[in-house]
Amino acid sequence: MDLNALAQANPDHWSKATAIRALTLDAVHAANSGHSGMPMGMADVATVLFEKHLKFDASNPDWPDRDRFILSAGHGSMLLYALLHLTGYEDMTLEQVKNFRQWGAITAGHPEYGHAKGIETTTGPLGQGIANSVGFAMAEEILRARHGRKLVDHHTYVIAGDGCLMEGISQEAITLAGRHSLGKLIVFWDNNDITIDGKVSLSDRTDQVKRFRAANWQVIEVDGHDPAEIDAAITKAKTSKKPSMIACKTHIALGHAAQDTSKGHGALTDEAQMAAAKAAYGWTTGPFEVPGDVKKAWEAIGARGAPERQAWAERFSAASERRQKEFTRALNFEAPKTLSARIKALKKQISEEAPKVATRKSSEMVLEVVNPIMPETVGGSADLTGSNNTKTGDLGVFDTDNRKGRYVYWGIREHGMAAAMNGMALHGGIRPYGGTFMCFTDYARPAMRLAALMRIPTVFVMTHDSIGLGEDGPTHQPVEHLAISRATPNTWVFRPCDTVETAEAWELALTSKETPSVLSLTRQNVPTLRLEHKIKNLTAQGAYVLADAEGKRQAIIMATGSEVEIAMKAREILQAEGIGTRVVSMPCMELFEAQDEAVRKRVLPAGPVRVAVEAAVSQGWDKWLSGERGRAAKSGFVGMDSFGASAPADVLYEKFGITAEAVAEKVKSLL
Amino acid sequence: MDLNALAQANPDHWSKATAIRALTLDAVHAANSGHSGMPMGMADVATVLFEKHLKFDASNPDWPDRDRFILSAGHGSMLLYALLHLTGYEDMTLEQVKNFRQWGAITAGHPEYGHAKGIETTTGPLGQGIANSVGFAMAEEILRARHGRKLVDHHTYVIAGDGCLMEGISQEAITLAGRHSLGKLIVFWDNNDITIDGKVSLSDRTDQVKRFRAANWQVIEVDGHDPAEIDAAITKAKTSKKPSMIACKTHIALGHAAQDTSKGHGALTDEAQMAAAKAAYGWTTGPFEVPGDVKKAWEAIGARGAPERQAWAERFSAASERRQKEFTRALNFEAPKTLSARIKALKKQISEEAPKVATRKSSEMVLEVVNPIMPETVGGSADLTGSNNTKTGDLGVFDTDNRKGRYVYWGIREHGMAAAMNGMALHGGIRPYGGTFMCFTDYARPAMRLAALMRIPTVFVMTHDSIGLGEDGPTHQPVEHLAISRATPNTWVFRPCDTVETAEAWELALTSKETPSVLSLTRQNVPTLRLEHKIKNLTAQGAYVLADAEGKRQAIIMATGSEVEIAMKAREILQAEGIGTRVVSMPCMELFEAQDEAVRKRVLPAGPVRVAVEAAVSQGWDKWLSGERGRAAKSGFVGMDSFGASAPADVLYEKFGITAEAVAEKVKSLL
Repeated sequence: MDLNALAQANPDHWSKATAIRALTLDAVHAANSGHSGMPMGMADVATVLFEKHLKFDASNPDWPDRDRFILSAGHGSMLLYALLHLTGYEDMTLEQVKNFRQWGAITAGHPEYGHAKGIETTTGPLGQGIANSVGFAMAEEILRARHGRKLVDHHTYVIAGDGCLMEGISQEAITLAGRHSLGKLIVFWDNNDITIDGKVSLSDRTDQVKRFRAANWQVIEVDGHDPAEIDAAITKAKTSKKPSMIACKTHIALGHAAQDTSKGHGALTDEAQMAAAKAAYGWTTGPFEVPGDVKKAWEAIGARGAPERQAWAERFSAASERRQKEFTRALNFEAPKTLSARIKALKKQISEEAPKVATRKSSEMVLEVVNPIMPETVGGSADLTGSNNTKTGDLGVFDTDNRKGRYVYWGIREHGMAAAMNGMALHGGIRPYGGTFMCFTDYARPAMRLAALMRIPTVFVMTHDSIGLGEDGPTHQPVEHLAISRATPNTWVFRPCDTVETAEAWELALTSKETPSVLSLTRQNVPTLRLEHKIKNLTAQGAYVLADAEGKRQAIIMATGSEVEIAMKAREILQAEGIGTRVVSMPCMELFEAQDEAVRKRVLPAGPVRVAVEAAVSQGWDKWLSGERGRAAKSGFVGMDSFGASAPADVLYEKFGITAEAVAEKVKSLL
Repeated sequence: MDLNALAQANPDHWSKATAIRALTLDAVHAANSGHSGMPMGMADVATVLFEKHLKFDASNPDWPDRDRFILSAGHGSMLLYALLHLTGYEDMTLEQVKNFRQWGAITAGHPEYGHAKGIETTTGPLGQGIANSVGFAMAEEILRARHGRKLVDHHTYVIAGDGCLMEGISQEAITLAGRHSLGKLIVFWDNNDITIDGKVSLSDRTDQVKRFRAANWQVIEVDGHDPAEIDAAITKAKTSKKPSMIACKTHIALGHAAQDTSKGHGALTDEAQMAAAKAAYGWTTGPFEVPGDVKKAWEAIGARGAPERQAWAERFSAASERRQKEFTRALNFEAPKTLSARIKALKKQISEEAPKVATRKSSEMVLEVVNPIMPETVGGSADLTGSNNTKTGDLGVFDTDNRKGRYVYWGIREHGMAAAMNGMALHGGIRPYGGTFMCFTDYARPAMRLAALMRIPTVFVMTHDSIGLGEDGPTHQPVEHLAISRATPNTWVFRPCDTVETAEAWELALTSKETPSVLSLTRQNVPTLRLEHKIKNLTAQGAYVLADAEGKRQAIIMATGSEVEIAMKAREILQAEGIGTRVVSMPCMELFEAQDEAVRKRVLPAGPVRVAVEAAVSQGWDKWLSGERGRAAKSGFVGMDSFGASAPADVLYEKFGITAEAVAEKVKSLL
C-alpha cells in the first residue's frame, strides 16, 4: 500500500484513522500482548462509520436509541477501546488504554460487557458477536413496532473477521437475519485474507459474497482503505430492506512490516518496526500521544450525536407516562409489580388442583400467566415448539409482516438462538427465553457461557431433561448436562419437581437482572408434590424440606425434578418400616449454596444418612452428600453413571435402577 | 403425488422402495414412537443408491473398502434399519426391526454406532453426520494416497435433512469439504420443505443450491421420487472432482394422509391412515411382511458387491505382508509395538534433562516421537497451530495436491474439526487428534460427547487450560471445562503436570480403543516434577504419590497440571514447619476411579487433612476431598469459583489466591 497516497488523498481522515493505529501499537507494546493487526486494518472503516454514520453520543452512552456497534472480531479490542477513548467516553481514559490487558483495567484482552460504556457485548469467542447482532436487530424491530419510530429507530453495525465467518454459528446468524429481512443490520467483513495459521486459503475458499447472497443479504464490496467507498457503501446499506454485508478488502497490520501476514494478527511489539510504521503513517508524536487537533476532531465526532439524542429525549418526554414507564421498566429488567401476585395465585390454584403434568407443560402454564403481563418477554424454540411448550396463545409470531410478534421460530439453530437471545437481552427492552432439548445444551454452550459471563438474564428452557425422554435414546438424553450448567459460574440451574416449583423457578428467572437461568424440565408427567400452598417462594432458598421425617430422623433423601416423586415414594417405604425420613427438594443448588450456613444446616442437619437421587451423573452432588466442614454423613447416590439407552421412559428408570425401591434400599444399606 | 403413476413407471423399484415405507410404518406403529416421514420420503433415493451405486456386501459388512452410508438425518433411523434388514445384514433381523426403540434392541431411536453392522456413525444430533462425513472422506483420501486405489477407493454417501443444513456445523463441514475438493463425498439433501415446527420457510429461506456452490460444491437437482433422475445424478456425482450435493425434492411421508406436513415428520401410528397409505402403495401383505420376491430382490442387492469384495480381498492378499499388517493394525487401533519403548525412552530423557516447558510444548515433544512411528495419526488445529503445538515436522499438510499430508489446517471450525475427527476414527485406519484452546471445548462439545457415546478414541488437544492463559481474559480462560469433560461418561480427561506425565497421557490416549481423551495442557511453563524415572506409566493409575510426607503424615495435597508445582511448593512450606505432607498428582480422575479400592486407599488414606488445588471450579473434587464411604477427612479446595480475568498469568494466580502460600495456609487452617 502507498500510505503516502492514502494520507494525501484524505488527510483529515488519515490522521483520525492513524490515531487508532498508533494507540493500538502503543497499547499492545505496553501490554506486550494483544492483537495489533485487526485494528490497524479496520481503522479506516471504523473511522468512517463513527465519523459519518454511527448514531451515538459519547457523553450519553446509554441512550436507548443509539446505534449499536458490535466488534464480533473481539481480539481487535484495541479498535474499540481507541474509538471510545478518542470520541470521549468518560470511563475510557488514556490511563485505561495504557493499562490494556492489566489487572483491574476495563480494557480487557477482549471486550467485556459491563467493563466500559460502549462495549455492547462480550466478544472474543468467534462468531458470537455476529450472532448477538441478530438479536440486537430483532429487538430493535420488535421495539420499533411497539413504540414507534420516534422512540426506536437505529442500526446495528458489526465488524466480523474471517474467523467469525468460518464458525458455524455465523451461518445460523446469517440465515436468520436473511430470513427475517433485518435490514437495519449491517456487517462489515474484514476481508484481509489472513488467519492465525496463515492465508485464509489454507483452510477456506468459500465465496463469502455468494454465501451471503444465498441467505438473502445485500452485499457491497469496497476497498476497506478508501473512505469514500466505505461511506457510500454504508449509505446504501442503511436504506436496504435486506441485511447488508459490506465486504471490506483490507490489509491486516496496514503499514507495518508484518502487513498482510499472519504474524500481523498478533502482538506487534518490535520497537524498530513500530517506529517505522509510525513514520510511514507520518505520525510523529510520542507513545499514547494524540495530537490535539486530531483528538479534538475525534471528540467532535463523539459529540456529533448530542442534538439527535436531545431530540430523542424530547420525543421520549412527550410520550405517554405509561409508555415511558413501560419502556424504562423493560430496559432495566424490572418485572411488573403484578408478577409476584400472579405467580402466587397460580401456585395456590395448582396446589389445590394438583395436576399431574410434565414440567414442560407446567412451564407453559406459567408462561400463559406471565406473557400477557410482561410484554418484554420474547419466546421461541429451536424447532421444538410443541415439545418445549414455549409458545403461548397471545404472543404472535415474529415475522417480516408482524414485527410485533413475540414468538420466534428459531429453526434448527440452538447456538444461533442462544446467542441471538443474548443479543436481545443486551439490547435492552426484551427479556428473551428459548427452548430446546436439554441434551442440546451442548450446541448452545458457548452462548450460554457468555450469558453467565456477561451477567445477563437470558432464560434457557431445556426440556426432556433426562432418560425420561425415552425412546429417542442416548443421543437425546442428557446425563451430564445438569453438571455442565451447574459447573458454570453465575448460572442458576432450576430443576423443578412440579408445577408449583416451576412457577417459582420462572418467577426467579423473570426477576433476575444479572444471572441467566437454565430451566431443566421433564418430558414425562409428574404429580404435584407441593400440595400445601405457601406464599413464600421456596425455590428461592435453593433447597427446602418438602416432607420431614416422622419419628426419629434417620435419613435425608435429596432429589430434584422428576426424581422428587421417587424420593417421596422411597420415604413412604422407609417410614412404613419405621425409618424416619426427610425429603429435601433441591430445585436450585446455586441458590442453596448462597444461603447462610444456618439455613443450609437446618435443611441438611448433620447426623442422618444422606441419599441423593437424580437421573444424571453424580458430579456436583458430593458436596451435599458429604456434609459441610467434613462432618460427613454416610451417604449414597442413585442416578446415572453412563449414557442412557433407547426404550420407553419407565423401562429406562427401572433398568438403570432409579426407583423408589432402589433409593429405600440405598438408605437401608447405609443405616 | 400420483402414486399409481410412480408404481407403474418403475414397478420393480416401487416395490423395493415400498418395502422400506411399509416397514417404517409398521415399526413406528409397534413402538408407538419414532419418525415415519423421512424414511417414507427418502425411500426412493435410498433404493436407487443401494441398488445401483453403493459398494457394499451385506455378508461382509466390515469390508474396509466399502462405500460409507451416513444417515445424518438420524431420526429417520428406520430407513437405515429397513435397508440393513432387507439387504440381509445378519444382525438386523426382523425381530430387531419389530423391537424398534425397545430396551436391548439394536434398533435404537437414532442409529447408534456399535449396535449393528452398517451403522457407520451415531446420528440424531443434527449436522453431526454430515460433519463426520468430511472426516470419512478425508480418511479415504489419505489412505488411498498411502495404500493406492487397489486397496482404498470408495465413496461416502450422506443423507441430510433441512435440520442438518440449518445447524451451523453443516457450514463448517461444507466449507471444509469444498476447500479440500472431497470429490468422493456425495450428500443427498432431503428437500421436503418441512421441519417439526412447520414449513421450512417459517424459519429459513436460504438458497441451499447457491450456498453449496459458494463453497465449491457441485449441485445437482432432482425429483427425489424419480429413480432415473436419482440414478443419473449419482452417476454424475461419482465422477466429480468437487463434493456433490444432490438436492432431492421429496414429499415427506409420501402417500400418507400426513404427507407434506410437519405432522408427517413424527410418528404416524393411526391405523386407518396406515392402512390407507399401504393401499395407496398397492402393498397388501400384513405388518412386517415383505413379499418373497421383494425380499429376494433386496437380498440380491445385498449380495451384489460380493464379487467386488472378493476381488478386493485378493488384491489385499497380493499386497506386501508389511502393508497388510500396517493396514490391519491401524484399522484395529493397535498401537505399534515400538510405542511403549519410545515413550519410556522419552520419559527417561526428560527425567534427566528436567526441562521447564509448557505442557503444550511437552505434547509437541511427545508427538515428535510418536508421529514418525505411528503413520495412522492425523493431527490438526482449529487455526491455533502455533499455540496448540500440534504440528510436527514430518507430518506434511493435507491438501488437494498432497493427499498424503497428515496435518489438517481445520480453520476456525472447532466443532467441524471435532466431528470430522470422529469421522476419521470411525472410517478406520486413522487415529485423529486436533487442538484448540480448552475454553473452546464449548464449541466442540456436541462432537466430543458423541465420541464418548460411540466409544471411539478421538484425541482432543486442549491447550491454554486455565487462567494461566493470561491476558486474553475470561472469554478464553476455562474454569468449568475440566468439570464438563469429567462429567461426560467414557471420557479420559488428562491434566498432566509435566512432560513425563504428558508422555504417559499420550501413551494412554494413543493405545485407547474405546475411549476419547481430552488433554488439558498449559500455556505457561512448568518444571519437570517427575525427576526419578519410572518405567511404569503412573498416569495409568489416575493418581499417585508424587512426594510423600516426611515424618507423620498430617496432610495430603492433591493437584493436577500446572498446580502440581504449587502443591509441591506448599509441601515445602509445610514440611519446613514440621507438617508431614503428601502430594498426590491426579492427572486422570476417571482412571483413578477405575482402580481397586485398595489402590485408591493407598494413595488417599483416611486420616490426614486433604486439600485439592486446581485452577478451575471445585465441582468433581468433593468426591476425593470427602473420602470414601463417608469417612471424610477435613478438607479444603483452592481454585476458582468465578470466571477469570484479563491480566498476566502470574498476576491472576496471585489475585485469585492460587498460590503455594494459600494452599499451605488452607492445610494449616484445617489441622
